[in-house]
Amino acid sequence: MDVLEDEVPVGGVAQDIGGVAADQLRSIVERIERLEEEKANIANDIKEVYSEAKGNGFDAKIIRKVVALRKKDKHDLAEEEELLALYRAAVGV
Amino acid sequence: MDVLEDEVPVGGVAQDIGGVAADQLRSIVERIERLEEEKANIANDIKEVYSEAKGNGFDAKIIRKVVALRKKDKHDLAEEEELLALYRAAVGV
Amino acid sequence: MDVLEDEVPVGGVAQDIGGVAADQLRSIVERIERLEEEKANIANDIKEVYSEAKGNGFDAKIIRKVVALRKKDKHDLAEEEELLALYRAAVGV
Amino acid sequence: MDVLEDEVPVGGVAQDIGGVAADQLRSIVERIERLEEEKANIANDIKEVYSEAKGNGFDAKIIRKVVALRKKDKHDLAEEEELLALYRAAVGV
Repeated sequence: MDVLEDEVPVGGVAQDIGGVAADQLRSIVERIERLEEEKANIANDIKEVYSEAKGNGFDAKIIRKVVALRKKDKHDLAEEEELLALYRAAVGV
Repeated sequence: MDVLEDEVPVGGVAQDIGGVAADQLRSIVERIERLEEEKANIANDIKEVYSEAKGNGFDAKIIRKVVALRKKDKHDLAEEEELLALYRAAVGV
Repeated sequence: MDVLEDEVPVGGVAQDIGGVAADQLRSIVERIERLEEEKANIANDIKEVYSEAKGNGFDAKIIRKVVALRKKDKHDLAEEEELLALYRAAVGV
Repeated sequence: MDVLEDEVPVGGVAQDIGGVAADQLRSIVERIERLEEEKANIANDIKEVYSEAKGNGFDAKIIRKVVALRKKDKHDLAEEEELLALYRAAVGV
């Protein structure tokens, strides 16, 4: 494997450890960590909107369903619901 | 590491490695593995039923929904659907 | 859509609802439900083995890791761990 | 349930549908949708960093592990790894 080869960086900015460009890897990991943190913050914001909605008397689970339904193509959704109605009638639920 | 030191179990059924009852742990791990395998086999059987259903012209995704709906308490489901209808009307979806 | 056509089953075993072979669908759904139940039972058995292990002083999370490691090909695992050691050294973790 | 009560909004900004404050619900749903979109964009950015890393010869799966390890408390991680080493020795993996 290339990255495992013994590389001697000559005056390079990257300090190689076992052939791994340490600086480059650290930079990658830090970028991911920053993005993961942003993502976690937004996930938290979403949770808070649901909490607030609940505090205002709404049902968070049902809002979640509405959000999911709105993501779908209207035509596909209509077809799906028609089929679901048939299957439910057939199975009795 | 201390715990990795060579310990001599004296007449014990379990051969301890670093104080871990090796035989007992192996037995636990093997039981889990057998159960995991059984579970994977059943998950595969379920997949096959869906495939077969699809082969017979059914829509697997809709069947999945029907199965989920049947798991719910009838009263809870009715309430949920009533609320969902209201929310959908309000939001227009 | 074919399944939406108004079909009148004449003495057929399947009672069609909106063109859906109701009996066939019910049978599919019931097979899935039985399999799902079996799967849930096994998942529960697995949980119990972990609980029991915990009761015997083992760390369930670490057992879970051991089980995951044993699933891997030995050669792949060795390569992975070698690379992980390099990356960890590079990043300092 | 309060939200199901027959409310007559008198000149209110909210148009109630079956007692649901439609405007309020729409606003909630739209806030969630905007946040979900932001979250999806960031998830996509993360994917791209991994792709780029892969393009530079790094192993994305191993980077993912390094990121996970860095999230842990150093002391907890050391303890976990010590125990894992014991269990692995006991089970032979």
